[in-house]
Amino acid sequence: MTDFSIDTDRLLGRLRELGSIGRDDNDRLIRLAASDTEKLGRDQLVDWIKHAGLDVAVDRIGNIFGIWSPTESTADEKPLMLGSHIDTVINAGMFDGCYGVLAGLEVIETLKAGGFEPSRPIVAGAFTNEEGVRYAPDMMGSLVYAGGLAVDQALATIGTDGTILGEELARIGYAGSHEPGFLQPHAYIELHIEQGPILEREGIPVGAVENLQGISWQRVTIEGDANHAGTTPISMRRDAGLAAARVITFLRERAKASNTPTVATVGCMEFEPNAINVIPSKATFTVDLRDPDEDRLLEEEAALAAYLATVASEEQVAISTERLARFQPVTFDAGIVAAVEEASAARGLKSRRMTSGAGHDAQMMARIAPSAMIFVPSIGGISHNPKEHTPDSDLIAGANILLDVVRKLTEPEA
Amino acid sequence: MTDFSIDTDRLLGRLRELGSIGRDDNDRLIRLAASDTEKLGRDQLVDWIKHAGLDVAVDRIGNIFGIWSPTESTADEKPLMLGSHIDTVINAGMFDGCYGVLAGLEVIETLKAGGFEPSRPIVAGAFTNEEGVRYAPDMMGSLVYAGGLAVDQALATIGTDGTILGEELARIGYAGSHEPGFLQPHAYIELHIEQGPILEREGIPVGAVENLQGISWQRVTIEGDANHAGTTPISMRRDAGLAAARVITFLRERAKASNTPTVATVGCMEFEPNAINVIPSKATFTVDLRDPDEDRLLEEEAALAAYLATVASEEQVAISTERLARFQPVTFDAGIVAAVEEASAARGLKSRRMTSGAGHDAQMMARIAPSAMIFVPSIGGISHNPKEHTPDSDLIAGANILLDVVRKLTEPEA
Repeated sequence: MTDFSIDTDRLLGRLRELGSIGRDDNDRLIRLAASDTEKLGRDQLVDWIKHAGLDVAVDRIGNIFGIWSPTESTADEKPLMLGSHIDTVINAGMFDGCYGVLAGLEVIETLKAGGFEPSRPIVAGAFTNEEGVRYAPDMMGSLVYAGGLAVDQALATIGTDGTILGEELARIGYAGSHEPGFLQPHAYIELHIEQGPILEREGIPVGAVENLQGISWQRVTIEGDANHAGTTPISMRRDAGLAAARVITFLRERAKASNTPTVATVGCMEFEPNAINVIPSKATFTVDLRDPDEDRLLEEEAALAAYLATVASEEQVAISTERLARFQPVTFDAGIVAAVEEASAARGLKSRRMTSGAGHDAQMMARIAPSAMIFVPSIGGISHNPKEHTPDSDLIAGANILLDVVRKLTEPEA
Repeated sequence: MTDFSIDTDRLLGRLRELGSIGRDDNDRLIRLAASDTEKLGRDQLVDWIKHAGLDVAVDRIGNIFGIWSPTESTADEKPLMLGSHIDTVINAGMFDGCYGVLAGLEVIETLKAGGFEPSRPIVAGAFTNEEGVRYAPDMMGSLVYAGGLAVDQALATIGTDGTILGEELARIGYAGSHEPGFLQPHAYIELHIEQGPILEREGIPVGAVENLQGISWQRVTIEGDANHAGTTPISMRRDAGLAAARVITFLRERAKASNTPTVATVGCMEFEPNAINVIPSKATFTVDLRDPDEDRLLEEEAALAAYLATVASEEQVAISTERLARFQPVTFDAGIVAAVEEASAARGLKSRRMTSGAGHDAQMMARIAPSAMIFVPSIGGISHNPKEHTPDSDLIAGANILLDVVRKLTEPEA
C-alpha cells in the first residue's frame, strides 16, 4: 500500500501559494467567506482543480467540488468525498482548512498520475463559510449540504458587515446551480491540523479522530445593584461581578475535579457600569462547555444551572441564560478510524485515537455519510493566528495517510 | 441652643432651584466642573451669597466663598468654614455636594437674621471639581486649597474633552485672583448625604462622621495564553480570566471572613480577546480597597499582593499591578464630632458615629484644619443617580444640626 506517495513540493507549494492570497497591507491573512479576497482563493483552487483534469461543480451555497470519475462503469457509485474549507478568520494562519482541501486534491492527482482505478468517484471539496466570522452560523456550507439548514435561509443570512451572503456569492461568481447534497457521499474524510497541543506534546504525528465533542454555548446575564464601592457594606451588596467570578471558579474546580475530558471556558465578559468605584450592577458572560459524551454534556449543563440558582440565592442577584449554540457530540466511523491507524502503522508512524475539540465540516457531513478525520500536530496548539504552524514533515505524513486510507476505501475488489 | 432654626422653605427651595440648573433635553442633571451649565449654577450661588449680604471671593482654582464677617473686632480671626461642591457627575441627583453648600449659606443667613454675633468669621464655600468627571483628580479644588497640589499644575489639567481647566475657568468667569488657601480655616465642617445605606437601614437621621476611609485603587493586568476553548485540555491552560475570577472571589471571602469594615470591590473588568471560544489571554481589572485604618489597609494590600503571586504561580500567568490612587484614612476632629452628637441629642434626634466610605472635600481640608462631617440618610444608599433622595425632614434636621454646631463653635465667650 505504500508504493504511492504524494508530491510534497506540489502540496507544500500550493499551501504557501494559497496562504499568500488575501493578505492585507499589514500582511495579515484575511479571506472571509464570499469576500473579494476569498474569491481570489476560490479562483486559484478552481484553476488547480481544472489543471488536474477534474470536473468542477459549485452548488447554490457556493461549495466547490473537484470530481474525479475516471471509470465509466463506476461513475454512478456514490463518491468518496475529501474536503474542508478555504475561508479564514481575521489574521489567520495558512493551514486551517486549506490543508484538508489541498491534500484532498493532492491525493486525487497522485492516484490519477499513478494510474490507480478507484472503485468509485473521488471528490475533493471546499465548503463555504466554515469559520462563521462574516456570516453565522459557522460550518454553514457543510450544514446546508447535509440538509441541516435550508439553502434559501442560509443565502439570506445578513453578515456582520450588513451584506447578504447570497448576493455576495453571486457578486463573486460562486452562486452555483447544483442543489447542495447533489452528490451523496459514500464516506467523508477530512484531514486537518489539530488546533490543540496534544499531538505535539506527545510526539505523535497522526491523530485518528474517533469523535467530536458536543458543544454547548450559553450567554449568562447576572443583575445586581450598582452601589458605591466605598459606602456599601459587604453584607448589603448585590454584586453581579462577584457572582460571575464565582461561576467561573466553580466551572474550573468542577472540570479539574473530574476524570472526564469535559472542558469549560468563559471567554467573554462584560461588567456594567464598569466603573472603578461602583459595584457591578450587571455581568454578562459566555460559557462554552464541551464533552464527547452527550450524557455527560447534559450533566454539565445541569450542574451549571444548579450552581447559577445557588449563586442567585446566595448573592441576591437575578440570573438568566440564553442558549447560543448546541451541537451533540459526533461519533466518527469506526472502520475509517481503524483504517487511519492501520495506514499509520504501515508507514511506521505512531498514531493515537483522539477527540476533536473544535467543530469541523466533518461534524456536519457525519449526518449523511460515514465520516472521520485525521489530525496532524499544531505547534504550541496555536490556531486562528499567524503563528499557526505544522512542520512540513507532518504535513506530508498526514497527506500520505489520507492517500493510503483513500486507496483502501476505493480499492477495486480483487 | 435650639432657639434658632433654619428657614426650611428657603433651603429646600434653593436645593430644587439649583437642581433645575444644568438639565439636558432628557432632563438629566449634568453640571460638569467649569462647564457652561456649571457656570449657571455658580452664577446662581453667587447671587444668593450676595443677596444674603456676604462678601464673595473666588480663588485661582475657582473655589467660591461667601464670607460673613459681621464684627470688626473678630474680622481677623480664622474663619469657621462650611462647604462642599456644586459640580455634578453625568445624570446626577440634586443633593450630592449642593446640600452642604446651600446649608452652609442657610446657616449663616439664619444666624445673621437672628442677630447672632459670632466670635470669628463664618464662610460658606463651594470647591471646584469635586467629582473629577471632567478633570482628574477628583476633590481638586479642596486639594489645591489645602496645598496638596500646585495651583498652576491643576489649572493645566487636560479634561476628558480635551479642554484645559484654567482656560475653561477663565472662559466662564471663575478664574479668581485669590491664592488658594488665602483664608486659613479655624475648622471645617461639611454636611453631606451619606451616599450609603446605613442611616436609612438603621432609622437614624444624623451621622456624626468620625473618620474617612483610606482608599487604595490598583489596576491588575493578568496575561495568559489565548488558546482554543475546545482543544486545550484544562491542565494545559493559562487562563487569564479564571485567574481574575479567583482574585475577585478571594477578596470577597477575605472581606466576609473579617470583623473589620474593610471593603473590596472589583468594578472594572475587560477580557481579551473576549471571544466565546477562546481562552482569555488577558484580563484587566481594578481593585478598590477601603479601610478607615491605615495599618489594616496596608495589610489588605499586602494580602492581595501575596494572593496575586499565588495565582500567578498556580495558573502559570503573569500578573502586574499599577497604582491608580492612594489616600490614607482621615481621622476627623473629636471635638467637632462630639459637638454633632450633642447637638443631635439636644434636638431629640438619634445619631451614630460612622465612617465615610466615599471621598469628600473634608478629606482634603482636614490637612489644614480640624474638620468633620455630618451625614443625613440616602434612601436606598443611592447616589450619583437621579434616584438620589433624602426626605425633606432629614434635610432640615441635618441643616439644623449644622446650625447648632456652628453656633457652638463661634459662640462668643461669656
